[in-house]
Amino acid sequence: MNHRDRSVSALIADHRWGHALASEFYKRDDIFELDIALLQDRWTCVGHASEVSSPGDWTTAELGAESVIVARGDDGALRALANVCRHRGSRVCVEARGTARVLVCPYHAWSYGLDGLLRQARNMPAGFDPAAHALKALPLKEIGGLIFISFGDHPPDFERAGEGLGRMTDHYGWAKARVAERRSYSVAANWKLVLENYHECYHCAPAHPEFSRLHALARPSERRLRLDIDPATGWSDLEAWDAAPDGAEVARVMRSALSAECETGSEDGRRLAPLMAPGLSGDCVFAELGFLSAFLAYADYGLIYRFIPRGVMTTDMEVTWLVHPDAKAGRDYDPARLTWLWDVTSLADKRIIETNQAGVLSRHYAPGPFSLMEPGALAYVDRYLGELSLMARGAHGI
Amino acid sequence: MNHRDRSVSALIADHRWGHALASEFYKRDDIFELDIALLQDRWTCVGHASEVSSPGDWTTAELGAESVIVARGDDGALRALANVCRHRGSRVCVEARGTARVLVCPYHAWSYGLDGLLRQARNMPAGFDPAAHALKALPLKEIGGLIFISFGDHPPDFERAGEGLGRMTDHYGWAKARVAERRSYSVAANWKLVLENYHECYHCAPAHPEFSRLHALARPSERRLRLDIDPATGWSDLEAWDAAPDGAEVARVMRSALSAECETGSEDGRRLAPLMAPGLSGDCVFAELGFLSAFLAYADYGLIYRFIPRGVMTTDMEVTWLVHPDAKAGRDYDPARLTWLWDVTSLADKRIIETNQAGVLSRHYAPGPFSLMEPGALAYVDRYLGELSLMARGAHGI
Amino acid sequence: MNHRDRSVSALIADHRWGHALASEFYKRDDIFELDIALLQDRWTCVGHASEVSSPGDWTTAELGAESVIVARGDDGALRALANVCRHRGSRVCVEARGTARVLVCPYHAWSYGLDGLLRQARNMPAGFDPAAHALKALPLKEIGGLIFISFGDHPPDFERAGEGLGRMTDHYGWAKARVAERRSYSVAANWKLVLENYHECYHCAPAHPEFSRLHALARPSERRLRLDIDPATGWSDLEAWDAAPDGAEVARVMRSALSAECETGSEDGRRLAPLMAPGLSGDCVFAELGFLSAFLAYADYGLIYRFIPRGVMTTDMEVTWLVHPDAKAGRDYDPARLTWLWDVTSLADKRIIETNQAGVLSRHYAPGPFSLMEPGALAYVDRYLGELSLMARGAHGI
Repeated sequence: MNHRDRSVSALIADHRWGHALASEFYKRDDIFELDIALLQDRWTCVGHASEVSSPGDWTTAELGAESVIVARGDDGALRALANVCRHRGSRVCVEARGTARVLVCPYHAWSYGLDGLLRQARNMPAGFDPAAHALKALPLKEIGGLIFISFGDHPPDFERAGEGLGRMTDHYGWAKARVAERRSYSVAANWKLVLENYHECYHCAPAHPEFSRLHALARPSERRLRLDIDPATGWSDLEAWDAAPDGAEVARVMRSALSAECETGSEDGRRLAPLMAPGLSGDCVFAELGFLSAFLAYADYGLIYRFIPRGVMTTDMEVTWLVHPDAKAGRDYDPARLTWLWDVTSLADKRIIETNQAGVLSRHYAPGPFSLMEPGALAYVDRYLGELSLMARGAHGI
Repeated sequence: MNHRDRSVSALIADHRWGHALASEFYKRDDIFELDIALLQDRWTCVGHASEVSSPGDWTTAELGAESVIVARGDDGALRALANVCRHRGSRVCVEARGTARVLVCPYHAWSYGLDGLLRQARNMPAGFDPAAHALKALPLKEIGGLIFISFGDHPPDFERAGEGLGRMTDHYGWAKARVAERRSYSVAANWKLVLENYHECYHCAPAHPEFSRLHALARPSERRLRLDIDPATGWSDLEAWDAAPDGAEVARVMRSALSAECETGSEDGRRLAPLMAPGLSGDCVFAELGFLSAFLAYADYGLIYRFIPRGVMTTDMEVTWLVHPDAKAGRDYDPARLTWLWDVTSLADKRIIETNQAGVLSRHYAPGPFSLMEPGALAYVDRYLGELSLMARGAHGI
Repeated sequence: MNHRDRSVSALIADHRWGHALASEFYKRDDIFELDIALLQDRWTCVGHASEVSSPGDWTTAELGAESVIVARGDDGALRALANVCRHRGSRVCVEARGTARVLVCPYHAWSYGLDGLLRQARNMPAGFDPAAHALKALPLKEIGGLIFISFGDHPPDFERAGEGLGRMTDHYGWAKARVAERRSYSVAANWKLVLENYHECYHCAPAHPEFSRLHALARPSERRLRLDIDPATGWSDLEAWDAAPDGAEVARVMRSALSAECETGSEDGRRLAPLMAPGLSGDCVFAELGFLSAFLAYADYGLIYRFIPRGVMTTDMEVTWLVHPDAKAGRDYDPARLTWLWDVTSLADKRIIETNQAGVLSRHYAPGPFSLMEPGALAYVDRYLGELSLMARGAHGI
């Protein structure tokens, strides 16, 4: 931070409601550090349980400089463990995922059980207490096959958000789904520009002709004609987040129509794979949780979006494709066709978000007004500023 | 800035006249930020009018994080517009140049006229005023085919500097010239090291044998024997900048001799292309304007140098070759021969400037005395410190 | 440094003896700047005298942003000269090594003698004093073929450390050795993580199976059985640094056993090259000096390790292989076999050190206790904190 820079509190106070954020929020190192502190103590989806289904299976997830191991124990339970050896701090698991009976640090071979307890450490001084040197456990929840963790110790209450998501995952049979494909897109932009992009479809018509041809979301009038609100699930087409005045984690689950005669998100609108669950229709459900996780359920496949801030102007966007557990590549679906829509859409988003970042760095940038088609991005910005403001009044003293 | 760092005011006060700058000026982030603020409010050449000759033609120019669109309107006028959408700040023009009826932001399709006025923005809230959301207009001047803009709102008076340049461009027929080639050289050094290099020829004999063979500039005694001062134009061989005690923009126009029997800057000293204007001799004219623009006119071709600070130790050096508007590549000139001298010279400069940057980072670096052959660099340094000092006393409070 | 960061003095005060350093020491820019200041005023080995054996031979050595020329003068003396031209600061020698009668700056051709005196500078103003513009001389010592310099003016007393090293170089005939090979490994980690790794062999068994098969060092019990302390040299197998309560430079010389039937550090344990000196046995000697230099002497070859901090998380590890002066590649040794052990070991170290750096960046990292097999690393950390603490109380005011 430069000594001439405005304080974060002053920047929050100067924010004009209904407008984009000031340039500083997208470029200052000190604000990125606050962002990471804010994001660490929230819930984030780190993957699907089918990839860690047997005792000994583990996978890792990252956020900024953090890395966490998610491992299934011999008791069948999933646990989140900080990926930091208690000896001299090496990462314990170096690969993205694997299977092991014990987690052995590659540096000095300290060995941990799948429950994080230290099993072996050679030649330690008298008085060394292995029990005091377990891998740090972190909060973890599983909802319908989706694994959520917190990178910090005190995430907000998850119950109501989890219920909403659970209705979606139940309806689409995600608890039994299988990971078919995964791709990562590195975006040279601040994470908030990436998420603001994700949370509005004002840009869909100009930037995503493929998506817009298939989805009613980009065309509000048509959408209203076609969609019914389902009284059983409470899903609606309202682009509003659950209110969470009590500080609980927030989720949004939104049913959305596809274009007439479209059955799924595919190049020709026709099904790509076996139905995820019996009786599913051609509509889809968008869901989001907290700040960094999003989901999209079609009748025949599902998508997990992970947004991973890496640096102040570097964000990874990871897309995971889910299919029915019995679906086989080649026989039941064509991987290239399965991934087509969200690969082309993600690549277009990468391009426009990076162009957005380049522009907001200008001293001629002035935050402009959100349109009527950007309520999701507006709500996201409001929520972010609200959380940051709470931190400003708290221990961080910003 | 580190809390142990000296203040910019103290660094200026410690400067020893006739010597190079202290190391801090070439490496500190906070000084680079001041530099950009200083440079933004000056005039900079951003290209040649022949590339934006018809209504709808546009080109872009950059400085640090800034990008500006230069577009020719339906009324035939050239305008400079900040390349920042008034909605959420995306760059509007992504390519280097193009032709369009309207400038459409690639993100949400806000559309601007070539005059910068907002023509279309879908689904905006009631009360939205398009007239208040035009692309920001910036100052622009055209002098004999050369386009100058300011990246800020309050550039200094341009009149006298423009007159001097205008005599040069008139004499060499640059108003009607055509761009033949363009190359960019990325130099891993602070912009001031790049410009100090450009503004002295003490290094020409050791570092530029090709240039030194052709140009008398590197040999002061020979130059004086051969050159006459032209009373009509006022051109001289003095390496002195126009004084500008009134704060106006400064220019330097200096006639210079080629070696005996040389007609232009070519490998064998012979002409490469048709004369730029009738009756031109074999001498040449060097001209510079402000902090970041330089020009060189030979009888048969011309050069525009743009120096573009990108980061504290990254500077782009862009060279554009101009020829007579009727000259055709292949028939009237050979592009490889046309670009030979200033490609080999620019590559050598890149190398020695980067070696200079490596050395000034040492704590054993002590600014040494300028030689008698470096008055241009010395004057450049003086002018820089003078401007920085004015900022120090002004709003920046450095 | 962020304004919320803890002071270096507070970090030192919070250090828990017997444990690894806090995360801040491995990532903060301001601490890296202090580290460089600390390291500059120590002794560092920069190479072997056989590479600068004739008048005019020169080589360069780097530390952070510093570069120093080591040149042999016409008088046969070796000198260390700051590689910074006294004119405008360019590096004078750009290549790694060479031979020259005068050192000519590539920028403006200022020419210096091999003694650093300015011989020629064209066109300087009246009153310019060449004698006041010599290349800055820096301290240099030669011990048994090893060249040591200080990058700063006031290195500590070298006498006792030099004596210890000298006994080793004399025993192994290094004064007459020849450089056979050199390789550099760029490690994405703070220099202290690289050196802590070098100074303990707790990691040898899990990370270096090749080394552990050959060397007894990784197996303390076996080592004690086999090694005798040599009363003539004072070498022992104690992993303790010479005490230096008087502020003198410190060295460590430690005799170490090879595994039974091993003669040297080679894939099959058999000799690779002619003996460095007559009558040498199969044991080896590890030696270290100051913070950044290490050596390993086998009967048939020797190794110089140079650790070169480049940035807060970038360190070069350079390994030089020495052989008997008459040994010829191809005839007397196979370069691939000669370099095998320490190439495979250095590559493994690069990997585990980078994994260590990734882990210590986590906010869940807590410095853990050193094992009984890490006394060298523990002593290194203690010595570093002691020196830093002295700086904290001194002029730096940290």
